[in-house]
Amino acid sequence: MNTRFPETHPRIPDEEFAGRITRIQEALDRRGLDALLVFSHEAEPADVRYLSDYWPSFETAAVLVPARGRACLLIGPESRVYAASRSRLKDIRQLMDFRESSQPEYPGSKLLKWPELLAEFKVRTLGVTGFAMLPAPIYRHLAEALGAGNVKPDDQIIRDLRMIKSANELALHRRAYRMAEAGLEAAIQAAKPGMTEIELCAEADYAMLKAGAETTGYPIWCCSGPNSNQAISRPTHRRLQAGELIQLQFGARLEGYSSSVGRVLHFGKPSAELQRFVETGLTAARKTMEIIKAGRTGAEVTAHVHGYIRDRGYGACILYGPAHGTGLMECEYPFIESSLELPLAANMVFDVDVFLAAPDYGLRIEDGVAVTETGVEVLSSHRREFIVL
Amino acid sequence: MNTRFPETHPRIPDEEFAGRITRIQEALDRRGLDALLVFSHEAEPADVRYLSDYWPSFETAAVLVPARGRACLLIGPESRVYAASRSRLKDIRQLMDFRESSQPEYPGSKLLKWPELLAEFKVRTLGVTGFAMLPAPIYRHLAEALGAGNVKPDDQIIRDLRMIKSANELALHRRAYRMAEAGLEAAIQAAKPGMTEIELCAEADYAMLKAGAETTGYPIWCCSGPNSNQAISRPTHRRLQAGELIQLQFGARLEGYSSSVGRVLHFGKPSAELQRFVETGLTAARKTMEIIKAGRTGAEVTAHVHGYIRDRGYGACILYGPAHGTGLMECEYPFIESSLELPLAANMVFDVDVFLAAPDYGLRIEDGVAVTETGVEVLSSHRREFIVL
Repeated sequence: MNTRFPETHPRIPDEEFAGRITRIQEALDRRGLDALLVFSHEAEPADVRYLSDYWPSFETAAVLVPARGRACLLIGPESRVYAASRSRLKDIRQLMDFRESSQPEYPGSKLLKWPELLAEFKVRTLGVTGFAMLPAPIYRHLAEALGAGNVKPDDQIIRDLRMIKSANELALHRRAYRMAEAGLEAAIQAAKPGMTEIELCAEADYAMLKAGAETTGYPIWCCSGPNSNQAISRPTHRRLQAGELIQLQFGARLEGYSSSVGRVLHFGKPSAELQRFVETGLTAARKTMEIIKAGRTGAEVTAHVHGYIRDRGYGACILYGPAHGTGLMECEYPFIESSLELPLAANMVFDVDVFLAAPDYGLRIEDGVAVTETGVEVLSSHRREFIVL
Repeated sequence: MNTRFPETHPRIPDEEFAGRITRIQEALDRRGLDALLVFSHEAEPADVRYLSDYWPSFETAAVLVPARGRACLLIGPESRVYAASRSRLKDIRQLMDFRESSQPEYPGSKLLKWPELLAEFKVRTLGVTGFAMLPAPIYRHLAEALGAGNVKPDDQIIRDLRMIKSANELALHRRAYRMAEAGLEAAIQAAKPGMTEIELCAEADYAMLKAGAETTGYPIWCCSGPNSNQAISRPTHRRLQAGELIQLQFGARLEGYSSSVGRVLHFGKPSAELQRFVETGLTAARKTMEIIKAGRTGAEVTAHVHGYIRDRGYGACILYGPAHGTGLMECEYPFIESSLELPLAANMVFDVDVFLAAPDYGLRIEDGVAVTETGVEVLSSHRREFIVL
């Protein structure tokens, strides 16, 4: 482990990283593939971090895992020193295709080319994870070198590993959710009408970092009033007002592991209409937590929770299922939807995520849970109520 | 303009957005292309924001500009309400290819398909900007529909527009640099040995958001001691110590427009070796600002500044040229390098960015400048010195 990076909190040990590579190699053998290319970028570094602990910024990155032998980290021209300080993989190669998206020129720079790398690792058939992010130029270079038919998108190979969390991963998630709760509490303490959405987020952000988060878990937001029905959002300079729903969406990250809490805030006594809407969201979240356990399918969970929401008359407000996997991605496989026949298993971690969008307002109630044989371990619960100030 | 988004600072007017589309259409005509697809993602939203003001999170996005007629914004399944609140383009379409990278399933969702969209807009030949980010599945869908030879990477079509800033863009840059300076000052005020790199960044982050930034300009960092020679970095839980170089790298964003300031901090009296190293960086930055003016080429600027650095004995510490364009991307074309024969022009904005990496320590001195006919307008200068506390 890198001695430049003092241990102020638990970290995933090197042996656990090595075990992940071994399990990928076993899966490659079962599939008859020569290697796996695991691609990630700044906005979604999960897979590369899972195998290397490296976490790109500006540039992109990949891990090349051969079916036998040593895996290597692939990076761009400016990240060598940064990557060396972070990566658990000691073999690091630089290719121009991993440079910044603005395509700086680096005149005279001599970096490795794909055909050399693929030949060295004797790759003829290549699985790819993160194909949905893989840049077209990299795809074209791989297809030219191997033939398009030998480049095989295969997210499932790493989803199968990542969806069951180890004891170390669970410990990091528990801490990350406590940090998100600290951010939530700081925002509630600071909240008052006239503040902007961005100012409120600044309070949460600062509190999470001071609580030990390495960064926010994602671009956190607060969206208020007519913007509160945004499923994905970013905070604006809009000023918070009494009498409107205010969606709070905060998350922290620790050693890559994510957390996310969603709450609804209101200044002054809410109308009966808003009260009933928010109570429905809170109850739907509780019902989701009550029904999740090892052995249930996502379809069963979804039918139960969406049935309740429809019975309350809010069926048209549903956009997606009541929970999604979380881990090194804030939102990752498996997705609890009507289409998910996969039985849930112990040590999966989910964000219970009840999002309801009415035409003029909306809410999200979000909290972490870890699946157990008999139910869930709740990872966050702070102020899970209609927060009325 | 969207009335849901009150005006608390200058914004680019709708007419200026419309003019950008018109100029893209003129360029399409000159190239004989039917349309341009402008792709962006969460970590690099610049091009889509330039044409639509929309700024994706989690999902990705594109703008389709036909050679004639109305441009449209392309988004994923969860961003409709968010995009409608932000986009200056009123025609918004949803395609599954723009969903989150974790590939949620959205059972039953009926979104538009590429062949329908391309047929509606009568596209047979398509330019693409952001090809280096374009996901392989989108590339494959376009190549299937149009033939690979009719999908033409063409970043230059939008670089030509973006590299010359309007009066409104310059006004936003000026404010964004003042916010970055506010972040720098807050960090200096808070800095003391024993703080972690992340804690110091939290101070800058909070101050920039309170000063009116919409977000940090990029994942800001502080890297200290043995990590200070990282060209790209992220802050860690490492504790700051007396006697070491500490690289500060902060930036704010306003209406998408970026700023970035880089400084070097030291607790206690620096060694003569460190003093000479930092003085070289500061002088190289000053020399870069002194030589930049309309009409000079990037190659001339680079030769002058790198010549000085080599004369001081630090040639081996150079990784790239002494300045890079900035705008909606923190680092964008043009790159001031030995390879840049393009003459600089008035109203280009650059980050003067002198980065020197010695084996055991490093520095970056960074500040914004806008090019004028006679020199530069300096956009940031706060504490441009060896900050010794």
